[in-house]
Parts: sequence; C-alpha cells; structure tokens
Amino acid sequence: MSLEFKRVLLYTSGMATLIEPRLLKGFRDFLPATETVRRGLTEKIEAMFRSFGFVPIDTPALEYADILLGKGGGETEKQIYRFKDNGGRDVALRFDLTVPFARFVAQHQTELCFPLKRYHIGKVWRGENAQRGRYREFTQCDFDIIGSDSPAADFEILLMIRAVLLNLGTDVSIKINHRGLFNHFLSHIGQKEKSAEILRTVDKAAKVGIDETGAELARIAGDLNAKKILDFTGIAGGSIGSDTFKQTLERMTELSGGPSPGSTRLNELWMFMRDYLHGKPGIDIFALDPSITRGLDYYTGVVFETFLKELPGIGSICSGGRYDNLAGLYSKNKISGVGSSVGLDRLIAALESLGKLPGGTGSASVAIACLNLEHSGLYQVLAEEFRKEGIPCEVFTEATESADSKHLVKQFVLAEKKGFRWMIIPSDAPRENPSLNLRDLATRKNREGLYVGEAAKIILEGEQ
Amino acid sequence: MSLEFKRVLLYTSGMATLIEPRLLKGFRDFLPATETVRRGLTEKIEAMFRSFGFVPIDTPALEYADILLGKGGGETEKQIYRFKDNGGRDVALRFDLTVPFARFVAQHQTELCFPLKRYHIGKVWRGENAQRGRYREFTQCDFDIIGSDSPAADFEILLMIRAVLLNLGTDVSIKINHRGLFNHFLSHIGQKEKSAEILRTVDKAAKVGIDETGAELARIAGDLNAKKILDFTGIAGGSIGSDTFKQTLERMTELSGGPSPGSTRLNELWMFMRDYLHGKPGIDIFALDPSITRGLDYYTGVVFETFLKELPGIGSICSGGRYDNLAGLYSKNKISGVGSSVGLDRLIAALESLGKLPGGTGSASVAIACLNLEHSGLYQVLAEEFRKEGIPCEVFTEATESADSKHLVKQFVLAEKKGFRWMIIPSDAPRENPSLNLRDLATRKNREGLYVGEAAKIILEGEQ
Repeated sequence: MSLEFKRVLLYTSGMATLIEPRLLKGFRDFLPATETVRRGLTEKIEAMFRSFGFVPIDTPALEYADILLGKGGGETEKQIYRFKDNGGRDVALRFDLTVPFARFVAQHQTELCFPLKRYHIGKVWRGENAQRGRYREFTQCDFDIIGSDSPAADFEILLMIRAVLLNLGTDVSIKINHRGLFNHFLSHIGQKEKSAEILRTVDKAAKVGIDETGAELARIAGDLNAKKILDFTGIAGGSIGSDTFKQTLERMTELSGGPSPGSTRLNELWMFMRDYLHGKPGIDIFALDPSITRGLDYYTGVVFETFLKELPGIGSICSGGRYDNLAGLYSKNKISGVGSSVGLDRLIAALESLGKLPGGTGSASVAIACLNLEHSGLYQVLAEEFRKEGIPCEVFTEATESADSKHLVKQFVLAEKKGFRWMIIPSDAPRENPSLNLRDLATRKNREGLYVGEAAKIILEGEQ
Repeated sequence: MSLEFKRVLLYTSGMATLIEPRLLKGFRDFLPATETVRRGLTEKIEAMFRSFGFVPIDTPALEYADILLGKGGGETEKQIYRFKDNGGRDVALRFDLTVPFARFVAQHQTELCFPLKRYHIGKVWRGENAQRGRYREFTQCDFDIIGSDSPAADFEILLMIRAVLLNLGTDVSIKINHRGLFNHFLSHIGQKEKSAEILRTVDKAAKVGIDETGAELARIAGDLNAKKILDFTGIAGGSIGSDTFKQTLERMTELSGGPSPGSTRLNELWMFMRDYLHGKPGIDIFALDPSITRGLDYYTGVVFETFLKELPGIGSICSGGRYDNLAGLYSKNKISGVGSSVGLDRLIAALESLGKLPGGTGSASVAIACLNLEHSGLYQVLAEEFRKEGIPCEVFTEATESADSKHLVKQFVLAEKKGFRWMIIPSDAPRENPSLNLRDLATRKNREGLYVGEAAKIILEGEQ
C-alpha cells in the first residue's frame, strides 16, 4: 500500500491537479488473474446449485433502512452504510443477503412457488473494522429451501454443501446439532429462561476453551448446571462419523429427559444418511456435535457448521440451520425453511492454501501473432476457425517487430506474461498460403506448416 | 405496485409492528424466472468475451467521491449516491464502470499487462428520475482493449460486438464514424473552436429531426456552414454496407480537404473488413455513418453505435469508441484504448420482444416425486444417478398425498407450476425395486418400469 502511494506521489509531483488513484480501506480491486479464478469458482458452485434444482434471485444493493435494520438496529446499525439519498429517503446498503431475502419473500409470496429452492450470490457491505482478512465489501453466497418443514429439506441442504465442496476437490465434515433439542435439555434442567445466554456461551467454547466456558456457565446457571451443560454438549466426546451419531443422539435424548421433536428430527436425518450411504463404506456426510449452537437467535431447528477435512483450522466455511419464521418482520404468514451461506473469501483462501483453486474456465490460452498489421482482417478469420474448434484465442493487435524480422521475441514475451501456452504464427502471405506455425511456449518447440485442424488437435491434446 | 401495497396493508392491519415490505423507487427484485434468464444471457456474453481472450476484472461499488466525480461533478453530481461513511469519508456509489476502470488502470499500471483486453460486468447506481424503463440500479457490461492504438484493436471490438449479438440469435448493424475526421472537417471550414457544441447538436439529430438540427447549426456556425455540416454528416445519404463505405469515406475525405489520420484509420478498417468478409457475400459488419458523433468529449478516434437489424427502433444497444487518454485524471501516463458498453436492460427488452431470450441454462427440468418421506435418502441417491447422466433434477421434499394414494396430483401440479417437463416416480419399495415411472408433464404420458439409464435417455432425447 505504501509503495503504491509513493508511486502515485511520483506521478503527481509537479502536477497538482492529478487525483491520487486509491481505494477505500477494506475495499478491493480484483485484477484479471484473481477475478478469473473467482468467477470460475462461482460458476462451479452455481452449476452444482442448479443441478439440484435451485434457482437464482437478485435484490437491490440499496434498500430502505427500516427494512434492513428492523425495529432495533443495535450492533448492526454501527456497521451499516446508511445515509439519506437525494430524495431525503433513509436508505442503507445491504449488510447480508438474509434480510433482503426475508423482505423479498414477504413481498412476493403470492408470486413465488413453494417450496422454493433459491440461491443468491451477491455483494454485501459492512463498515466494520477492516482487520486482516476482514473486508468492508465482500461476496456472500446463500442458498435456502423455504416453505418446507420437511427433514428431507434439511438433509438435502447438507448433501448439497458436501456436493459443492467435493466438486471443488475437497471433502468436508459437517457438524450438526438441533436448537430445539438443546432447549429441551435446558428446560429439563430448569434453565430454559437463560437459553440465549447459555447458547452464546457454548457457541464461543471452541474459541475461549473449556475452563473459561465452564466458569461462565457456572456464573449463569450455577455449578451443578454448568457441569450438566458441559456434559450434554460433550466437548470432550468424539462425535464424527455415522457410527457415533446414533450413540451421541441416544445420550443427548437421555440427558434431555427422553424423546422430543428435536431428537426425532435428528433420528430422521440419521436414517436418510444411512440409506444414502448404503453400499458406500468409509464415507460420512455429517456428524452430531452437541456443542454446535450458532450464535443467532434466528435458528429454531437443525444448525450446522462445515469444516474442510484437509484444513479444519480455518473455521467453518459454510454455516446455517433451520428457522421457523423467516419473514416475521414483514408478514403475518410464518414461512419456515432451512438454509446456509458460503463465505466466498474464506473458501478461496482455504482452496488457495490447499493448492486447489480452479483455474480460469475458458479464458484463452492461445494467441495469434501479428506479423503484419495489414493482415489483421485475415488473423480474425483464423481466430474464428480456432474458436469453432472450441479453442478460445486472442489476436495480437500490434506488429511489434520490424517487418523483416524472422523472430517474434517481443510477442513471445508478451504471450508468456499473459499466461498463454500457445502461439500461432500465421504465414507471411496468409491469402496465398493458409498454413501456420505453432509454438509451444512451455517447451519452446515449434511445429511448422500446419493447417488449422492439425494445430487445433495438438493444442487440445496438449491442454488435457 | 398499489395492489402489492393493499395486500401488505391487509397483513399489517391489527399488527402495527410489521414493516411494510417495499422497494426503493427505481430498484428491482429479480424473481427466479427472470433472474435465470438474466444469468443465462450474461453467461453467453461472457463466454464470447473469453473466447476472444478478454479477461474479467472487478472494482468496488463504493469509492472516494473525488475519484468518481473528478474535479467538476456538475450534472453527474446530482445523479450520484454520495454520502459520508461512519469514518467521515466522502464516498459515493459508482455511476458507471468507466471511471472506476480509469482509476484501476492508473493505480495498477505496473501490475497489468498491456495491451489489456478486459471486460467488467457489474451494477451501477444513478439517482436520476426513474422514468419508464429507467432504473436507479442497473447492470453495465463494459469491454475495452487498452494500451493499444492499433486499428486492429478497433476492428476487433466491432467484430466482437457482432459475434456477441449473433451468438444471442440476432444480427446487428454497427454504424461507425471518426471523431478526428469530423474535427478535421470542422477545421477545414473554420469551425474547429465550436466543435463540442456542433458535435452535441449533430448527436441529437436523429431525435429532433433535420429541420431543428439545421436551425441550431445555423445559429452556432452560420447558414453556409450549417449547410456544409448537414452535407458532410449526410443524414439523407444511404451508408449501410461495405460497398458504400468506400464511397462515403471518399466523399468525407474530399469535404474535409483531403486525407487525414482519421480518413486513413477508416480506410484501414475498411480493408480489414474486406479481407475478413472475403468469400462471405451478403454480409456486412459495420457501415460508415458520418452523423454518428457520440455526445461524450472523452472520445478522440473511432466512434460507433449498434442497432439490431430486426429492431432498430429500440436505439443503440452497444456504443463506444476510441479514446487517447483513459486515466488522465489520475496519471501522467497517457493510456489509449477502444471500448464499448452493452446496456443489459435494453438488450433484454429487445430480445424479449423478438422472442429470443435464452432460457435458463442448466436449471432442472426433472423432479423426483416424494411418495414416502422415509425414503428421502434413497431419492437423493436416485437424483445423483440422474445428475451423473447430465440431467439436473430437483428432489421433492414433501409427501403431499396420503400414503395409499395411487396418484400424485398435488406434486404434478407443483411440478408444472415450477416449469418442470418431467416427473420421476420412484417405486413404493425403492430398496427392493429400483425401477421407476416417468411422466411427461407436457403430454401427460407415463412410461412404467424404467431403469435410470432408460429414463435418462428418454429425457435427454425429449429435451432436444
């Protein structure tokens, strides 16, 4: 950043009217190499959503502030970009995709078809402190099934999370729990009214450690109950894999005073998983972890967090749960659902450190050299022929070397800098002689006197 | 809108705490059917850009106000969303993608590789009066070749515009002109210093008509010069097709006092087109139209507007031109380029009225019925098998009919409402009997006792 600034100062010295090119703190430019990867990743995620029958929606970046903030505001209000527009309206930039979705569903409920499986990928803005890895503008990717209270919907969301990540080349452990079952347990030990405070404390356990969590729980619910809560949430107990799911569930059911709707739902999910995994040994989809609570009051049923098996330390890259009243701020109709959100920045960071970022999909890896600017119309015909063979290609628009040069050093250097693998060198007289030379920039090997079809075959084989 | 409002009032009657779900004027929600089409269209456009070797970039929605507004502001300032953020910074939402691109190039010039062929698809915000068809939030789609002054770059931009629209199923006429040649002509008749005013007047000619344009030009430049300008811009003369391009150019060259860099550049473009079209009779790519000026001072070379051959009345759906100093506000380095912008909303409106909107790409057209909720795990296995055959499919998550019902009327209705073509009906006992029934919702024809491969074959054939 400071280097950038110095460079700018150099430009502006003696030219007081230049504006220093700079970004707001916490905001980012994406240069071609990065943006190509981001779009490639988004496309892969989106394709998987669609294959499950999920459909896209979009909502405005800017909304009335009361819509986004509800009645309260509180913590959220401090982080939001809120202002008066030219018409004096109190407006704000969306800070997530959930609140606009709730408004969207309330507003369009008669036009929508339920159960609705929708996804939404879009930018959101938060004016929070831009720490390391925290941005003020970032992309969220939400997906929900709403208008269904079915356990099959819960199951599908979990399955789709796994499918999306497997498709990106990395396996996951999804840890699930059930808010209702946790509350049922709290009722059983007479601590229901302290539910919100206890949930928040348990949610932080992984961060602050078992000792501090125990002390805080003792302060809230007394020593005995603190012990019961630590026992129920079983932070010590192993709970990964479908074998232990059933055992953990039995223990939770017992500690919470017997079966409840929450334990029934978890048992249904376990049965779906058992059927789904029949004949596929050694695989697990989700594990029961009674310490997962998700901080938000919003959730009422299943809650979950997703960790990459190869990089669990980066934290949950996809969290969510079931809620029973999505649009309660805007509509009397109770709309339940289950959904989740992928943090795209964290996912990209994780895939990058695993060396699993997908490359740019469909960006050109072939350049056509410009021997003679006058032949530019013919070079475009040539490019079209390669594109017809399924090969994207860029036409160079500058004859950088002198006309009698036999070598195209400058264009080879440019092509390598741009990340191209192949260079097509048309003949000197393309009207009379349509043959061409093909240079593999990786091996610096040339093949001469090829026709388009021959060159295309070599390129397509070499790309595999 | 008023109906929506009444419905909301109904909901809120007696519940004073509900917030009315509503949008800011000029902002839009996109429901699944519309958003699927929009994304499908964007993907097709983007795929064509990439096949030409163009790479994507992205920039923030929010920037420092001085970056976006430059020194002046003026008309732009009234239309912009500008405010103080929580840190007291003077910020604004971007109102186009050109200004952020100029800032981007100035800021990253040492990291970028020139000539740079980039595209950028993103939302922009303008607080202008939300008339019919004018929105305050809309998507722009810009593409430029910068760091090149080559006529081959001008040619490629024009060619790519045509390729993008042909790929969307509709042909275009691109009308081009050259700012430098126009100015050369104005110098020749001694009116160079009134260039900006004259250009603006000519730019409006198609809207206000020849009489009013003539009167205005006479006021600016006198009767005799007005006549010369009307003659040069040749509003009456036919100028479509590569045959008349050369004749028009010769007339313009003569009227402007002989050859100039502008006439040379237009001649080069004509030669490229001639070579490109060799052996393809009956096709034209662009025509020379001396009345095209583009209002913006920004352009210095070739300028152009694009009309759909089947719907010219809707106006230019893709305009642009060559500029010689993109980032002059932020950098001493002169960066020239040529670029263009597609108005996505106008394009969609045009394609819709031509019945040529692409359908959703890859959204599911197959639903798997839910006979028995308990089998949901197995239905997901089934769905996976269809997806492996390349068939996206949605699993229904609710057993809507009673267990002994032989008919799935409610699920058929839902599937039709959601736009599905096919319904897969698993067997009652999917563990023992993996065969299934396939219902074509269009013809209401059922096929019974199929295996996945057989059903997939029928679906894939039926979809063609």
